[in-house]
Amino acid sequence: MPETTHAQSTQIQLASRPEGWPTAENFRTVTVDLPDLAEGQVRVANEFVSVDPYMRGRMSAAKSYVAPFELGEVMTGGAVGRVVASRAASLPEGTLVLHQLGWRDVAQADADAFRAVPELPDAPSSLYLGILGMTGLTAYVGLTEIAPVQPGETVFISGAAGAVGTAAGQIARLLGAARVVGSAGSAEKVALLTDKYGFDAALNYKDAPVREQLPALVPGGVDVFFDNVGGDHLEAAIDVMNDHGRLALCGAISQYNAQQAPQGPDNLVSFIKSSLSMRGFTLGNHLDKAGEYNQRMSQWFADGEIRYDETVVDGIENAVDAFLGLMRGANTGKMVVRTA
Amino acid sequence: MPETTHAQSTQIQLASRPEGWPTAENFRTVTVDLPDLAEGQVRVANEFVSVDPYMRGRMSAAKSYVAPFELGEVMTGGAVGRVVASRAASLPEGTLVLHQLGWRDVAQADADAFRAVPELPDAPSSLYLGILGMTGLTAYVGLTEIAPVQPGETVFISGAAGAVGTAAGQIARLLGAARVVGSAGSAEKVALLTDKYGFDAALNYKDAPVREQLPALVPGGVDVFFDNVGGDHLEAAIDVMNDHGRLALCGAISQYNAQQAPQGPDNLVSFIKSSLSMRGFTLGNHLDKAGEYNQRMSQWFADGEIRYDETVVDGIENAVDAFLGLMRGANTGKMVVRTA
Repeated sequence: MPETTHAQSTQIQLASRPEGWPTAENFRTVTVDLPDLAEGQVRVANEFVSVDPYMRGRMSAAKSYVAPFELGEVMTGGAVGRVVASRAASLPEGTLVLHQLGWRDVAQADADAFRAVPELPDAPSSLYLGILGMTGLTAYVGLTEIAPVQPGETVFISGAAGAVGTAAGQIARLLGAARVVGSAGSAEKVALLTDKYGFDAALNYKDAPVREQLPALVPGGVDVFFDNVGGDHLEAAIDVMNDHGRLALCGAISQYNAQQAPQGPDNLVSFIKSSLSMRGFTLGNHLDKAGEYNQRMSQWFADGEIRYDETVVDGIENAVDAFLGLMRGANTGKMVVRTA
Repeated sequence: MPETTHAQSTQIQLASRPEGWPTAENFRTVTVDLPDLAEGQVRVANEFVSVDPYMRGRMSAAKSYVAPFELGEVMTGGAVGRVVASRAASLPEGTLVLHQLGWRDVAQADADAFRAVPELPDAPSSLYLGILGMTGLTAYVGLTEIAPVQPGETVFISGAAGAVGTAAGQIARLLGAARVVGSAGSAEKVALLTDKYGFDAALNYKDAPVREQLPALVPGGVDVFFDNVGGDHLEAAIDVMNDHGRLALCGAISQYNAQQAPQGPDNLVSFIKSSLSMRGFTLGNHLDKAGEYNQRMSQWFADGEIRYDETVVDGIENAVDAFLGLMRGANTGKMVVRTA
């Protein structure tokens, strides 16, 4: 049995199901003693834990992308850390690993709950939760499988300053899009999209209705819409879709905390008139694209083509604040909690 | 120059664009003298003229499936008739032909405006406007290309007692659907669906909200939704779609005459949760399937697998009444105007 400096784990549990916006009262922080490592197990000191919009859905008992979180269980989700103790030959001490054990500073489980990361030079480990991980893969699947972008086309991305949005904007361009337009919720984010991420234009959805602002930014119409927001953004996009346009519904953050059913778009007849197609997706059904994505993104990253932002919150005890901030749009790029 | 008995043509023109529901005042009936046949032309005495829901869209100036009808022009659309005079060797007198010259009793034009019909035994000529023609092809394209049905699946069809709906119900079954459910607007139509057309269950959308009635009829959920209605039907269908469900939007007759933008479905988040896909279509983009369809449908028809209804209105001067009746759901199966 190896010596370790981590005999405890601080964890965030779901204490009650939120109605509407989640609050700190829906969560509970506990510190537990870890048992000795069993044969085949490893102990991982997390470096970063991911907070993501999809987690809101799992907090409700209703059907979501995946099964709801259980009350009293630790909030699961992506995390990256290093093996600090090992009784599994496949994952020796020092290995950087990804896992889904979520909101805790130390994770301990059978080795098959962890996956060793092929580390890229100059990549902070948090990126494996973002552009080099599930977040980037989500954007890639949306723009290749769900709503494939063709060279020369115009792409509109809602929630474009978020983690998936910034990845999607860059990937759309790398896939050959001629014009990439995004929406975000502040002047600073709008400037970031055009100045740093190469968007041709961007709008601040808090300035005026999206439906009023969008047409001027896409004079040739939109061929592919990548939606992270839903609601008014979806309706505005349908207005300007070109014939045979494709809509990928990745998220609907505008609606996750709604307590009343939202009004849907009033222009669905355009689907018939313009031969539009719309597909919702969750990454779990498309993990077979991970190998292809890792290969392409590794090359893009090595070529210096990739920009990213992270909003880092320190301390696992602040994971709830990070998540609530994410729901309010307080992040730019990927929101992560630093646990090291 | 051959002798003919048709030197005149009675035609229905679009006189003004309807706001909301069309009325007789939006149309004008005129009788014109036909010029002598030029070389390469044929004169066709129509037997049946088609009235179809999509024509409502073309009466407005706004973008629709195809270009709007021009004011003062004859209402174009599908028609079937026989060549009564010919100066084109390809279409001798007596040939049964299909064309798009629409609401008139006699059509005269270059031969390439007409297409000879390979007549099936025991098929009244009106069927080439319906189950053996564009109407049937529309249903087939929807269930094979747009929202493909897999054997064993459950299919829900809105507006199921209409021309496309009755075709879709039968084609779904012939493609292997295990359960076919439809909606219609009267008890008589509901009975017809289950008694004549082989639907497993049907609902009368005037009895209670579709959203309340549908779940009990599809205990295993819906895999494919073929929509002719839109609005409340689309919303109700989304509620019960199975994972990876497919929605084909063929029509939205509930909304064609709306003067205010309708409220859209409140449950689009299900597209993400359940990986749904929805595609609108118009037949014009899928005419390449006509050969395959004609082959399969000819066999089904010869095998006695195909039922149909027609609502026949006599006299080209009553085409407007027929169209207005169609908009109100006065038809069962294909609505045609007999001009012979």
